[in-house]
Amino acid sequence: MTTLPVAPDVFHLYDTTLRDGAQQEGLRLTVADKLKIARLLDDLGVGFIEGGWPGANPNDTAFFASAAAGDLTLSNAKLAAFGSTRRVGGKASGDPLTRALLDARTEVICLVAKSHDEHVHRALKTDLSENLAMVSDTVSFLVGEGRRVFLDCEHFFDGYRANPSYAIEVVRTAADAGAEVVVLCDTNGGMLPQWMGEIVSAAGAVGVDLGIHCHNDTGCAVANTLAAVDAGAMHVQGTMNGHGERTGNADLITVAANLQLKYGWDVMPAERLARATLVSQGVAAITHVPPNARQPYVGHSAFAHKAGLHASAIKVDANLYQHTDPRLVGNDMRMLVSDMAGRANIQLKGSELGFDIDDRDLAARITDTVKRREMEGYSYESADASFELLLRAETDQLDLRFEVLKWRVLTSDEVTDEGDSEATVKVRVGDKVRSRVGEGFGPLNALDKALRSALKKDHPAVESFELTDYRVRIIEAAYGTDAITRVLIDTTDGARTWTTVGVGTNVVEASWEALHDAYLWGLIER
Amino acid sequence: MTTLPVAPDVFHLYDTTLRDGAQQEGLRLTVADKLKIARLLDDLGVGFIEGGWPGANPNDTAFFASAAAGDLTLSNAKLAAFGSTRRVGGKASGDPLTRALLDARTEVICLVAKSHDEHVHRALKTDLSENLAMVSDTVSFLVGEGRRVFLDCEHFFDGYRANPSYAIEVVRTAADAGAEVVVLCDTNGGMLPQWMGEIVSAAGAVGVDLGIHCHNDTGCAVANTLAAVDAGAMHVQGTMNGHGERTGNADLITVAANLQLKYGWDVMPAERLARATLVSQGVAAITHVPPNARQPYVGHSAFAHKAGLHASAIKVDANLYQHTDPRLVGNDMRMLVSDMAGRANIQLKGSELGFDIDDRDLAARITDTVKRREMEGYSYESADASFELLLRAETDQLDLRFEVLKWRVLTSDEVTDEGDSEATVKVRVGDKVRSRVGEGFGPLNALDKALRSALKKDHPAVESFELTDYRVRIIEAAYGTDAITRVLIDTTDGARTWTTVGVGTNVVEASWEALHDAYLWGLIER
Repeated sequence: MTTLPVAPDVFHLYDTTLRDGAQQEGLRLTVADKLKIARLLDDLGVGFIEGGWPGANPNDTAFFASAAAGDLTLSNAKLAAFGSTRRVGGKASGDPLTRALLDARTEVICLVAKSHDEHVHRALKTDLSENLAMVSDTVSFLVGEGRRVFLDCEHFFDGYRANPSYAIEVVRTAADAGAEVVVLCDTNGGMLPQWMGEIVSAAGAVGVDLGIHCHNDTGCAVANTLAAVDAGAMHVQGTMNGHGERTGNADLITVAANLQLKYGWDVMPAERLARATLVSQGVAAITHVPPNARQPYVGHSAFAHKAGLHASAIKVDANLYQHTDPRLVGNDMRMLVSDMAGRANIQLKGSELGFDIDDRDLAARITDTVKRREMEGYSYESADASFELLLRAETDQLDLRFEVLKWRVLTSDEVTDEGDSEATVKVRVGDKVRSRVGEGFGPLNALDKALRSALKKDHPAVESFELTDYRVRIIEAAYGTDAITRVLIDTTDGARTWTTVGVGTNVVEASWEALHDAYLWGLIER
Repeated sequence: MTTLPVAPDVFHLYDTTLRDGAQQEGLRLTVADKLKIARLLDDLGVGFIEGGWPGANPNDTAFFASAAAGDLTLSNAKLAAFGSTRRVGGKASGDPLTRALLDARTEVICLVAKSHDEHVHRALKTDLSENLAMVSDTVSFLVGEGRRVFLDCEHFFDGYRANPSYAIEVVRTAADAGAEVVVLCDTNGGMLPQWMGEIVSAAGAVGVDLGIHCHNDTGCAVANTLAAVDAGAMHVQGTMNGHGERTGNADLITVAANLQLKYGWDVMPAERLARATLVSQGVAAITHVPPNARQPYVGHSAFAHKAGLHASAIKVDANLYQHTDPRLVGNDMRMLVSDMAGRANIQLKGSELGFDIDDRDLAARITDTVKRREMEGYSYESADASFELLLRAETDQLDLRFEVLKWRVLTSDEVTDEGDSEATVKVRVGDKVRSRVGEGFGPLNALDKALRSALKKDHPAVESFELTDYRVRIIEAAYGTDAITRVLIDTTDGARTWTTVGVGTNVVEASWEALHDAYLWGLIER
């Protein structure tokens, strides 16, 4: 096997989710969001957290003020403020944006500078020597103020290809002015791994510590980052969940996991890497960007097996079909129940839930039922509670603690303090029939209140049930409003959390089924 | 720059979306779906379409029968059937699964064989020589039947690392038996690009044409594929939108676009590559897997710019901030309107829509409004029609063709032929007030019918309006049912398609706003 490079003495994991990651379409972070994400990043064990661009963006200025005021206590990471070199023709000491960087009171400042000659001429509208003066002046001023300064060379790779000596001159100027790390940025993201080595090595000849900042426009952000590390970069920039403008930035968790588990480097303590999946999910919950199930290492599907061929082998040894132990990154192997699943998947999934379905006929019957229901639009892959209800129904172990006789819900433009929707639910519990009304914001909220009210006398446990997440998916999009809707609901009673699925011709019907099953599952006696 | 290899005389783009891609969690393809995707793949210009595993999966058997019966006419691609080598201890000529491969009546058959010694022992439960006999017997039998045979070496890279001579022996056995291409599979997906060269070169010493099949478990599927091509592979396997088990397979469009636009190889005619975005979107519409906006080359965000810094430079020259011309892959550059946008974005977006907002104060006011609305949960990035309504309102160019006085909608478990929901809408049009009732499946459908009924006398154009897509997003997930809901609706009148956004404390309220705005936009006089 090709020999892998040995780890450098100092290695930086530098996260820019809060700055470059926030450039992603659809992503918007409040100050509170940024503080929460920064805490997750500190838990994960990154070395540096780039918090934003103070002075250029009021939200970012407020974030640094809040952090400096004590709202953010970091145990491991250093906070970095991002900014640009001073204005054309000015002085760093008198530049308000440079001043804003100092006011952010971070140990580290990361400056961005032009390194592509054409960008100096056409976007900055100045000459090449003034751009070098801007680098030199701003870096040396901030170093003189006691800051550790990193310098991002924007468009470095395109710049090197257009004018290699000028691109290298920017690196040298920053190094001479006192920059601790010079970061080579593939700003437009068009690089391929086999092009990295030569260019990074050329920059390395300057004799300064190098960093790498990649985007995923060719689908190679992670590989480009690793290629730069192979060529000597000791500082890698990336983001949580690969957030970032256009196709996103290098996914920092994937890069770190590759270095730790494939290179064998100690880029973070093992117990911190084992938090990676939780951190990724935590960031997704804050950004409200739906997580990518196929994300390497930490995705919901990253260690999920559907193929019957694989499932059979996994019954022999899980490691036959996984490239690493999912627990090292805090993830789990999962067997998928689906219409492509064979009996082996159903049996493995059943035993995960505590059901013995060794009987071949029973397993085959359940498999058929699952396939039929999935054809109708159900998805049991993430709705374990609904799958358990199905298993119990097929094995005569389902005790229905209530029966719904009737429901309806009205939503209108008349909003009161109680909401804009009113639901009526009629249920039979034992020999009692109870009709209750619930008001709420939206049909699901109103139905939840009505059902809870109808059940609480006989089943006081329902008072602890709380809906914590609600996901809607239109399955037959492109066929208009009479498409099939699938709803997934997460419910908790404080101790347990469970997921149910509902399907219907509309969102209210599907929501009602998922809600009904959530109550049914929560009331099972175990 | 590092010299790129020259293109081989023959190069295969081999798509396995219909087989390996369908292993993805949440993906389920009917025979009709498979036929539609195969037609898209043929349009795109891939050389081979792997349709499934006939005999092992009834759905796949039916697909090949349907294709052979004339339901699928391919102008460019060859159809391939996938299967495994014959059973342990049997004969290929008498193996029912081998027979099923012949019955599929494809020109190409792709067989999978074990090439990792441990898998032969533990999963196949036979000895190493019998596995070689299975390869030799099955390949030579199918070649004798007039088929072109490709052989997938499962777990080749892990197998090579464990027992290189045996892994190579499998390649040689397949080549000697007449396999046209031997495909090296990184089945568990744990490879890195810098490990590919040595192993692919070792297999290349056998003297047979090589293929590569990668998964994305280290985030390097595309880079690993390119590294194998650099080492001599002339056949690349991948899937549309990177679908596949766990983290997915190599994204075939990204691989092809890199080879075409970065290597400069002619892997497909330029006019076919220019269909890539449409094909990717078409596959997403069929699979119902939400498209990844950040997908390289063809993603909705792949050429979208949000940063104010970038927008200013793009006003100078778009190519300063994009790595390739998006039209080459059928995509477009897009300016994003968001709370991070500066005036430059708003002005560019406005001129895209035909509005001149050169006035700085006006642009600043609109920017503020957008930022405030986005704080409330709106997203104008994909809702151009709602953004135009906002622009018109701010510039006094919005002529309200109707005014809603009241609406309400009731959904219940009583289903009739007309639906399960009943809506009432009261509108003022000119000096008339009209109240109408609509029945439908679900609240949106019922509201749509009621509003249409109330408007059609005065505005007959509404009869041509049709809702074509409906997307629901819970923004404050993890805060229960009183979260904010955002709804996006696509509407068409046959000639134009437009997107509107609605936000509310519930899905009905948000849907109503998006529906209302869709009608408002559709009735603007131009």
